[in-house]
Amino acid sequence: MAGNTIGQQFRVTTFGESHGLALGCIIDGCPPGLALTEADMQHDLDRRRPGTSKYTTQRREPDEVKILSGVFEGQTTGTSIGLLIENTDQRSKDYSNIKDLFRPGHADYTYHQKYGIRDYRGGGRSSARETAMRVAAGAVAKKYLKQVHGIEVRAYLSQMGDVKIDKVDWDQVEQNAFFCPDADKVDAFDELIRKLKKDGDSIGAKLTVVANNVPVGLGEPVFDRLDADIAHSLMSINAVKGVEIGDGFDVVEQRGSEHRDAMTPEGFKSNHAGGILGGISSGQDIVAHIALKPTSSITVPGETITSQGETAEVITKGRHDPCVGIRAVPIAEAMLAITLMDHLLRHRGQNADVLTETPKI
Amino acid sequence: MAGNTIGQQFRVTTFGESHGLALGCIIDGCPPGLALTEADMQHDLDRRRPGTSKYTTQRREPDEVKILSGVFEGQTTGTSIGLLIENTDQRSKDYSNIKDLFRPGHADYTYHQKYGIRDYRGGGRSSARETAMRVAAGAVAKKYLKQVHGIEVRAYLSQMGDVKIDKVDWDQVEQNAFFCPDADKVDAFDELIRKLKKDGDSIGAKLTVVANNVPVGLGEPVFDRLDADIAHSLMSINAVKGVEIGDGFDVVEQRGSEHRDAMTPEGFKSNHAGGILGGISSGQDIVAHIALKPTSSITVPGETITSQGETAEVITKGRHDPCVGIRAVPIAEAMLAITLMDHLLRHRGQNADVLTETPKI
Amino acid sequence: MAGNTIGQQFRVTTFGESHGLALGCIIDGCPPGLALTEADMQHDLDRRRPGTSKYTTQRREPDEVKILSGVFEGQTTGTSIGLLIENTDQRSKDYSNIKDLFRPGHADYTYHQKYGIRDYRGGGRSSARETAMRVAAGAVAKKYLKQVHGIEVRAYLSQMGDVKIDKVDWDQVEQNAFFCPDADKVDAFDELIRKLKKDGDSIGAKLTVVANNVPVGLGEPVFDRLDADIAHSLMSINAVKGVEIGDGFDVVEQRGSEHRDAMTPEGFKSNHAGGILGGISSGQDIVAHIALKPTSSITVPGETITSQGETAEVITKGRHDPCVGIRAVPIAEAMLAITLMDHLLRHRGQNADVLTETPKI
Amino acid sequence: MAGNTIGQQFRVTTFGESHGLALGCIIDGCPPGLALTEADMQHDLDRRRPGTSKYTTQRREPDEVKILSGVFEGQTTGTSIGLLIENTDQRSKDYSNIKDLFRPGHADYTYHQKYGIRDYRGGGRSSARETAMRVAAGAVAKKYLKQVHGIEVRAYLSQMGDVKIDKVDWDQVEQNAFFCPDADKVDAFDELIRKLKKDGDSIGAKLTVVANNVPVGLGEPVFDRLDADIAHSLMSINAVKGVEIGDGFDVVEQRGSEHRDAMTPEGFKSNHAGGILGGISSGQDIVAHIALKPTSSITVPGETITSQGETAEVITKGRHDPCVGIRAVPIAEAMLAITLMDHLLRHRGQNADVLTETPKI
Repeated sequence: MAGNTIGQQFRVTTFGESHGLALGCIIDGCPPGLALTEADMQHDLDRRRPGTSKYTTQRREPDEVKILSGVFEGQTTGTSIGLLIENTDQRSKDYSNIKDLFRPGHADYTYHQKYGIRDYRGGGRSSARETAMRVAAGAVAKKYLKQVHGIEVRAYLSQMGDVKIDKVDWDQVEQNAFFCPDADKVDAFDELIRKLKKDGDSIGAKLTVVANNVPVGLGEPVFDRLDADIAHSLMSINAVKGVEIGDGFDVVEQRGSEHRDAMTPEGFKSNHAGGILGGISSGQDIVAHIALKPTSSITVPGETITSQGETAEVITKGRHDPCVGIRAVPIAEAMLAITLMDHLLRHRGQNADVLTETPKI
Repeated sequence: MAGNTIGQQFRVTTFGESHGLALGCIIDGCPPGLALTEADMQHDLDRRRPGTSKYTTQRREPDEVKILSGVFEGQTTGTSIGLLIENTDQRSKDYSNIKDLFRPGHADYTYHQKYGIRDYRGGGRSSARETAMRVAAGAVAKKYLKQVHGIEVRAYLSQMGDVKIDKVDWDQVEQNAFFCPDADKVDAFDELIRKLKKDGDSIGAKLTVVANNVPVGLGEPVFDRLDADIAHSLMSINAVKGVEIGDGFDVVEQRGSEHRDAMTPEGFKSNHAGGILGGISSGQDIVAHIALKPTSSITVPGETITSQGETAEVITKGRHDPCVGIRAVPIAEAMLAITLMDHLLRHRGQNADVLTETPKI
Repeated sequence: MAGNTIGQQFRVTTFGESHGLALGCIIDGCPPGLALTEADMQHDLDRRRPGTSKYTTQRREPDEVKILSGVFEGQTTGTSIGLLIENTDQRSKDYSNIKDLFRPGHADYTYHQKYGIRDYRGGGRSSARETAMRVAAGAVAKKYLKQVHGIEVRAYLSQMGDVKIDKVDWDQVEQNAFFCPDADKVDAFDELIRKLKKDGDSIGAKLTVVANNVPVGLGEPVFDRLDADIAHSLMSINAVKGVEIGDGFDVVEQRGSEHRDAMTPEGFKSNHAGGILGGISSGQDIVAHIALKPTSSITVPGETITSQGETAEVITKGRHDPCVGIRAVPIAEAMLAITLMDHLLRHRGQNADVLTETPKI
Repeated sequence: MAGNTIGQQFRVTTFGESHGLALGCIIDGCPPGLALTEADMQHDLDRRRPGTSKYTTQRREPDEVKILSGVFEGQTTGTSIGLLIENTDQRSKDYSNIKDLFRPGHADYTYHQKYGIRDYRGGGRSSARETAMRVAAGAVAKKYLKQVHGIEVRAYLSQMGDVKIDKVDWDQVEQNAFFCPDADKVDAFDELIRKLKKDGDSIGAKLTVVANNVPVGLGEPVFDRLDADIAHSLMSINAVKGVEIGDGFDVVEQRGSEHRDAMTPEGFKSNHAGGILGGISSGQDIVAHIALKPTSSITVPGETITSQGETAEVITKGRHDPCVGIRAVPIAEAMLAITLMDHLLRHRGQNADVLTETPKI
């Protein structure tokens, strides 16, 4: 119980259902003196927002966030920051038909069994709509990390179905609707999405999240390692089924002589580790990959049961992404930023001196 | 800071360095009335222990755990349980030579930078020796889960290098030194290890962890999802670089119609989800996979620097596993058990009634 | 940092400044299936609300709370509950004059020093206005405790200045504007308040909080004892300077033979302990007393300094209670209820069986 | 459950029963680079130790603490510190007679009801013996606070029974067996103890704890206020029934014009607040008072029941202090030090810059 909070020193707590009155969030522990306005969060909220391109669900939500506290005369005060986004486009009628159905691949059944009651409208609390507040909170972390430490947290789509990118050009990421860093793959992604829409089906995706300029020393062994906490925050995103740090599962076939990153007076010669050694940031780029499952909200008929345990068939009509992974790009950035922010503050408390300037070799 | 604790209601806190006087652990929140003796922990400690087979490091440690508190007349009392394992085979001299070296792929550099001081003897706190206490604490969780709920937590080696298992026969797992469930692959693993020893090199591995009879309802959305907390606990194991739940990264190429697990009055028809939907256990087997990197402690010379920043070469002689993944099997079981135990207690607090008997369809 | 949350399993996180847009709260961990509407909270909010009697500040706030999530079709769903109260009567102009003054006895100076920036309007986050959300959250806890366990949490004013009550008649508490359980003292309190208003001064108060029907077994030794957590939650209320459990400071002059509560087959013969032994509830009434300091917002001139460190004089005009202790009665009830609720859920997790029915002698 | 940990960033977790094999503690979050040896803890352990004077219990325990981890070459490394004290003088036979008795005023009954099982030997976990580890952990905090910030945490006995001190001379505190700062009262205390021994009875006590040189800014409103956390840590000490900050319960009869501490360019003119305003340290001395109940372990016969619910009489023979308050002096210092240390680290994380030097007016 009480699982709606993440972070210890930069602590984010959220509430809100897909079709409730509003989504909300409390950011506790944000350092004082950070210039902050709604606009700082709106950009990422718009990147996540549905209905922004023909590739994502057509639900229309302005997703306008309001700062209710913690900011005075344009600066954070160090007190808790209250954020609110009102749900304007609710359309509960869309969902009444699945009131007594457990949609396969969804949380309907588990919520029903765990709580004995559930808000069936659009998945209620289990809807990805909840991630809007993660993005808002993450934007605050991203701004602080960038301004105070020059840390940049970015992500991109590295694979959808069997289409993989071949190169990473950060300038391309915001140039297309897929957050794809490889201009040559945009058409292939486009084609795949069209086919899926025709088939009424969906597909999985792989994202890559990267943080630059991370100081050495973040992470608290042996349990709150930076990689362990990153795994927690990324795996907490809806639909994520796998998390990798650095080379991830490729290490299974690697030899020690190949995997370990050599060090020189000029720095590391490679980054198989993904910027983390012994659970502590090494000063290299932090690199993580996540796998997102294909959404189960498709028009292909699915076999399931009712809450009375009778056989039933499900066809999910309405507004749904063929690939939920696309819109997860800003969410993944947000979660990594929140975790880095939390560890930055945790580390400073114990080692205030050590971090006065970023340690160098 | 303060990162040596895992769990909220079943809380495990550990201490101890590779070559310190002892390793210790406090288990807080264990329910009262559980019959418990050292023997309950010793079996798993022996499975993890070095020097048990020709495939693992020859360091000889009896790893005898002592219960110092929390147990009275053979039963847990509900108070904190203190556990201790004395280090008997320390051989500090082995390590003095790397006092000023940052071994590539190890935590030497990051600990040095984070804390400004480090216990260089055998990696100090960053040594896998620390995992002995995880196994001891995990054994307590495993016993409770088994006795009270019939939950069984087991793991096996599913891949080493490019050698993959083809079938899973649980009876085989304890019959060979690799925790390999496929008798036909034992020779291949054996051969691979011999070659690596000859080459003085190491290799990565992939493990699979499974929990049976898990009740529906464990996991606390939206951040403390069961899968997110499992990712945290498994990624906190030394050398782990990737975690998958269910189909993991395979979902990237799956379609929704293929991935979602159909439900029938008799139960689920498949388990692509790995037993977790919306962050809550579904009553199916919980299945997770982890990737462990090859150890960097090899005799192949490595390029690195000294703490003074000068170029240096490292050759790690002494007692080291060519594949640290093998001994990680009981550790992975322990971490999954600890996380399930924690969530079982957390869930019971909020939903005492709901869990009186395991919900069925 | 990150200090705006209380409780572990029944977790309350708040935000909001005296003159910000709104106050808010997230209740995480409330069990599902509890019937809940705004009306359940409004009663206590009205008891706390300013402007309700001639004895309390005349600031006019409807203090209407809105449930934004966590409740579906009139019942809690087990997900996080978002609550909001908009600030309607802000009057920032009242406060601009003290923008650069550190009002003696207030948090102006400490907030300024801690954060380097502060919302000076009405004390910002340090204003007692924040307690409205505590009362709203406490009302949820009170309802659950009452319905599920028959636990009743109530409080009264036991002393103001040198006027002490002689008897406790619970029926009287809601019959007068002082929450006074002794009808014979109402006039004396009335007179005292009139005099203070004439003098432009304020006075301290002592409150008593009592919980009936508390089951045996709540509290987690050795640090999270029930009494220790009650001390934390009650001391966290603005202006509280002292907390007593049972006989409190009277024990200093008591002998062991007098203090210890004798037990008989019919139960305890006295309750010097205040319902807690060894940090665990004994099944008797839980009794606590708190001391609230006199507000520093008075028209008697006060000596202080400016944020530039220059001498200055302060006279606080405007809407202020001569005795803030009066309105603290529902706040004290709320904090005790939140702490009992948290411990009830914590205890159930570990001892699900034990608490099936309240243990009896 | 899981209540044996205190602190968030400087986190202390303990285990151990009165007559178990050993007491232990893990300190997590201690900054690296602090010179630390057993001797640093032994002094306070000896001050707390029984059998040191004719006024305290004659149980003879060397209470020798051993550092098992977290310290390398005489300095803390930033990793978790394991501490151990073996129980050498156990005498279980003393207690077998009360195996089935619920001693009035003790935790026997509540532990029995909460857990369904209890270690009856000397109170098991509920024995004050547990506080030895608090003192050891507190000594580490005291040393850090002193060395790094010049903060001094000290306590004294201010009242026993009806004997109150009239003046505070810190030099006297360690000159007598009562930690009494008023030399003129030592005889009166001595006489009172003799009388109690003759009567086979016990008495309560009041202690005062003071911290000097505390920087401005410690404390995290609104719930983790410094005063709220101090109340928690002091109330968690065995036998404590009341906690006051500054003027404490005297504020009930004070007027605002009298209570509020005037500020001048030279600093505050008084300290009614006890060094905390709005839950944040003001830079003045932090002053707290606690009330300790008289021990119930006396030879005066007491009325009680057996675990079968039958009437019984209890006479507690053996080794017991007529006034447990005396030995609580070092314990109170330890708890205040632990809480200040925790808040110092918490504050530094969020406001690293602000605390570079102690803020002055």
